Amino acid sequence: MAGLDPELINNVTWRIPNALTIVGSRSGEERNAMTTSWVSQLSMEPVCIGVSVEAEAVTARLIREGGSFTVNLWNAEDSRALVKYAKPADVVDGAIRGRDVHDAPSGAPVFDDAIAWMDCTVRHEFPLGSHVVFVGEVGALDLVDPDARAASMFDTRMRYGGVARR
Amino acid sequence: MAGLDPELINNVTWRIPNALTIVGSRSGEERNAMTTSWVSQLSMEPVCIGVSVEAEAVTARLIREGGSFTVNLWNAEDSRALVKYAKPADVVDGAIRGRDVHDAPSGAPVFDDAIAWMDCTVRHEFPLGSHVVFVGEVGALDLVDPDARAASMFDTRMRYGGVARR
Repeated sequence: MAGLDPELINNVTWRIPNALTIVGSRSGEERNAMTTSWVSQLSMEPVCIGVSVEAEAVTARLIREGGSFTVNLWNAEDSRALVKYAKPADVVDGAIRGRDVHDAPSGAPVFDDAIAWMDCTVRHEFPLGSHVVFVGEVGALDLVDPDARAASMFDTRMRYGGVARR
Repeated sequence: MAGLDPELINNVTWRIPNALTIVGSRSGEERNAMTTSWVSQLSMEPVCIGVSVEAEAVTARLIREGGSFTVNLWNAEDSRALVKYAKPADVVDGAIRGRDVHDAPSGAPVFDDAIAWMDCTVRHEFPLGSHVVFVGEVGALDLVDPDARAASMFDTRMRYGGVARR
């Protein structure tokens, strides 16, 4: 990307219509949740989901230590909640910033308000400089609200991607 | 995923609001394009884009041989074109199924009708069973139509993901 205009990079990459989900992670009794947009299924056999998070993020450490993560799909009509978790947040009294969570089979937290969730056991970790991709095999999942539409980035004013901010 | 209901897996993973893009690839004089929904930026330093494609797909071979790929963001108002490339299609007379293409700096094809595109040089290839993830560093890109909205899966009746079809 030598010589590429950072503003152009932002302008193009911000147009990729990403999902907007909340990723839950846990190491020991430390449980955390963070809004994450770089999320996609990556394979069918096995059924694996990938999430790319900042290498220095609390979530990266917890996923690495705990060996699992959850992906919580969120109701697009309730997108304000997604802004809450733009910065990582810990569990207090069974809730994260006022939203109740419970433990998925892997132990990572799932939100009671998720419209659907997947519990993923880490199979691969791919370091990519500023970020790290965790690939997790789906071991449990549920569809809680079949009628809700899952939120994407464009349901909010949030933008994520492009070049690193200084 | 032992014991998980395949229908539940489909019902949950199909709700992930993925992008819907056309990925261009080339090996020698063989140029190809395929609609692809498992696409996301994966890192900021370097600026890398990941695409996960079926391991047996023509596109996987061309990306591996050619060492690059393009991601073409498409106008949501023109989503019928995306259906055209659900099966891989070759270049004939400078066009792929009637849509003109030109060569990006890496040599991979870019659609004249793309609303934005990124030309990516492969830095990593991660095999994941049925699919393979190619991680490409953005070496060139352009924003052609800043006013258009980029298509996502839900702009079409297409669905991709879940378990492999038999």
